Amino acid sequence: MDRIVDLIRAKRDGEELTQEDFERLVNGYTRNEIPDYQMAAFLMAGYCNDFSDAEATALATAMLNCGQRLDMSDVPTPRVDKHSTGGVGDKVTLIAAPTAAAAGIYVPMITGRGLGHTGGTLDKLQSIPGFRTQLSMSEFKTQVKELGLAFTGQTDEISPADKRLYALRDVTGTVESLALIAASIMSKKLAEGLGALLLDVKVGRGSLIRGRSEARKLAQLMISIGRRMNVTVQALLTDMDQPLGFTVGNALEVMEASQTLQGQGPPDLTGLSTELAARMIYLGQSSRSIESARDQAQQLLADGSAITKLRDIIAAQGGDPEVVYRFDLLPNASGEQIVSSPRDGYISRINADDIGRAAVMLGAGRDSMDDPIDPAVGVILQSKVGDQVVAGQQLCALYYTDETNLPEAVQLVEDAFRLSVNPPEPRDLILDLVQ
Amino acid sequence: MDRIVDLIRAKRDGEELTQEDFERLVNGYTRNEIPDYQMAAFLMAGYCNDFSDAEATALATAMLNCGQRLDMSDVPTPRVDKHSTGGVGDKVTLIAAPTAAAAGIYVPMITGRGLGHTGGTLDKLQSIPGFRTQLSMSEFKTQVKELGLAFTGQTDEISPADKRLYALRDVTGTVESLALIAASIMSKKLAEGLGALLLDVKVGRGSLIRGRSEARKLAQLMISIGRRMNVTVQALLTDMDQPLGFTVGNALEVMEASQTLQGQGPPDLTGLSTELAARMIYLGQSSRSIESARDQAQQLLADGSAITKLRDIIAAQGGDPEVVYRFDLLPNASGEQIVSSPRDGYISRINADDIGRAAVMLGAGRDSMDDPIDPAVGVILQSKVGDQVVAGQQLCALYYTDETNLPEAVQLVEDAFRLSVNPPEPRDLILDLVQ
Repeated sequence: MDRIVDLIRAKRDGEELTQEDFERLVNGYTRNEIPDYQMAAFLMAGYCNDFSDAEATALATAMLNCGQRLDMSDVPTPRVDKHSTGGVGDKVTLIAAPTAAAAGIYVPMITGRGLGHTGGTLDKLQSIPGFRTQLSMSEFKTQVKELGLAFTGQTDEISPADKRLYALRDVTGTVESLALIAASIMSKKLAEGLGALLLDVKVGRGSLIRGRSEARKLAQLMISIGRRMNVTVQALLTDMDQPLGFTVGNALEVMEASQTLQGQGPPDLTGLSTELAARMIYLGQSSRSIESARDQAQQLLADGSAITKLRDIIAAQGGDPEVVYRFDLLPNASGEQIVSSPRDGYISRINADDIGRAAVMLGAGRDSMDDPIDPAVGVILQSKVGDQVVAGQQLCALYYTDETNLPEAVQLVEDAFRLSVNPPEPRDLILDLVQ
Repeated sequence: MDRIVDLIRAKRDGEELTQEDFERLVNGYTRNEIPDYQMAAFLMAGYCNDFSDAEATALATAMLNCGQRLDMSDVPTPRVDKHSTGGVGDKVTLIAAPTAAAAGIYVPMITGRGLGHTGGTLDKLQSIPGFRTQLSMSEFKTQVKELGLAFTGQTDEISPADKRLYALRDVTGTVESLALIAASIMSKKLAEGLGALLLDVKVGRGSLIRGRSEARKLAQLMISIGRRMNVTVQALLTDMDQPLGFTVGNALEVMEASQTLQGQGPPDLTGLSTELAARMIYLGQSSRSIESARDQAQQLLADGSAITKLRDIIAAQGGDPEVVYRFDLLPNASGEQIVSSPRDGYISRINADDIGRAAVMLGAGRDSMDDPIDPAVGVILQSKVGDQVVAGQQLCALYYTDETNLPEAVQLVEDAFRLSVNPPEPRDLILDLVQ
């Protein structure tokens, strides 16, 4: 049997590794038989020479097999989950998941925390006082069975390699590999016992993936990994050049999601959340066509079923369901700083990554997994791309508790806004469907 | 200032790093501020994207500057050293260094131990009972000053980064990078306070470097690093397809070197050792032309000055100088196993790497730095490439103490010999001079 260094050399020299090779690497790493430095060299060799689709599938499979899978046999079907590759102001899950659950889809959502300038669903939910983000597996399954939806954090049992591999990639410059991204996501999602998975692959300045062809490649990779595991996967490629909706920051996003579930949300967030809910319903085959799934999603939002579902989930997980109506029950920041337009014009761009990084500086996110989060802080945009503004008009407000990083955050936000004399070309939010 | 992960990403994306970047990496690694896994990722990124000549020079300089340099100001000039990139049966240093010293060249030889299938000068010398391979720096300098030559091992003070980087490269598949090889060698040799350095770059099956153009590139890289440090560097590219001389193994090689210093050596070893000694003398400018340097080297070998010099060095470093005449004073193996020719023919090839690996199996070398060495064991060839043999004629003998790995070693040696019906084309031993 080859030594590990021979596998590293093979990958370094552009050879294609086998399923068995990836099992050895992943199992050895998880059992601490392969040290970090060998895995780091292997990941960089793969980054530089690229992994084939077969290798990405082999890696995802090895990571999945290395951990436990949920036994969901006593949870009814259809079981459908969604996953976003991460964006700024992306609170879609808080809207789409309860809507799909209200339609009779079972959504076993094991989800992550945010890292860097993109937020995590779990961090947003944790801003609700009392909300328990870490359920036992039996609590989790019971809740999915009874309410159609539960949120919980990653466990040590599911894809144990992923947590360590991600931390290693973060410090060794190997995060942006499509194969490694795909394997990381799929090794976790495929453990949930799903029939189908809907992916929201973000493209643009606020995403890890900057270009549309790269996003399509990533989507295709995950679809192909899913096919191997008999899970139907579809992906929407969606624009993440400017933040989604108006709010960025945990409590602020819970607030905006609640408003959207009550028909008071911004058009971009409402439109995308409805489409994603409809796709989840459609994938669950509880509806005959995507058109009728869209009708059903809109209906469930309009008649209050979706917000009732979210309230039920919040209550079931220990939070106060009244937060969806009474935002004063959510953590509030003590300071507010307005950023105004320096001149007349049209907003031609709002760089999502800058807004995201400003929010992290204020404490809304973390640069490393140990950083604490301030649930109250963040940014509320007053205008979006395409809006006409006059000099001195308010562009957005920063909400903060600690003003240490405030000047730098303000600077970032000011630089994020670009003005033009003429209105910019309208952009599509939903760029493509890959299936 | 960039974070280390940003330097890794820059190298990963093919950017050229600066002298300052390499200082940060090398100093940070040596001070344990940069973990192995980040250095491993960096080395692999460099391996895959290649380092420029300027980067190789920057790395060598950073490694050199990170450690101490010998203060050789009270040792007379000319000070010239030689370095071999490592071969099988390569005992040239034991012949060329005393010859050059006998010509008035000061040779401060800080040298290494063997790893893998190539031997190390220090291991060979250590087979001489009593020989001290680890001198204090003051002992070392005094001996160079008084006798013109001293051998000692690597210290922790000289290029401290090199030892750790080499160990890391060994287990992460990044050994074969020309830039990393050049930086490793030069960071150590340039600390010796030299005026000139002669390199013996081995090419072929018994060397890390398989092709001549690669060897030339490596030589040019080291010459260019030397120029930056005001050290004249020349390189001979020499064939390492079959072992050099007849013996492989530590005491066996001391024996053959002694014979060669007494005019009884095999032609290939005698020729190459004389040429290398002449080049060292020539580089030290104690002779006006390379031709007169060759004459001087031959003279010093013929008149016994060179062997007297080696005897003086052995005595000064605690060994018994009589070993150069009385081989029974050297460790002797207990077992002998003959390998004979399966048929009539000409020897067309003797794979040096196979012979080297067989010797390691018998205990003559080490696979990892902690392995013990048996000084007595090894291989003695009876024939070399081009010789005509008949079926049943002895090709070589294996000398062993422990027979555990003997069958496998015999197999390797048998496979190393290739026979042909017609005599093979003669090959040059000295392939090229690069300066």
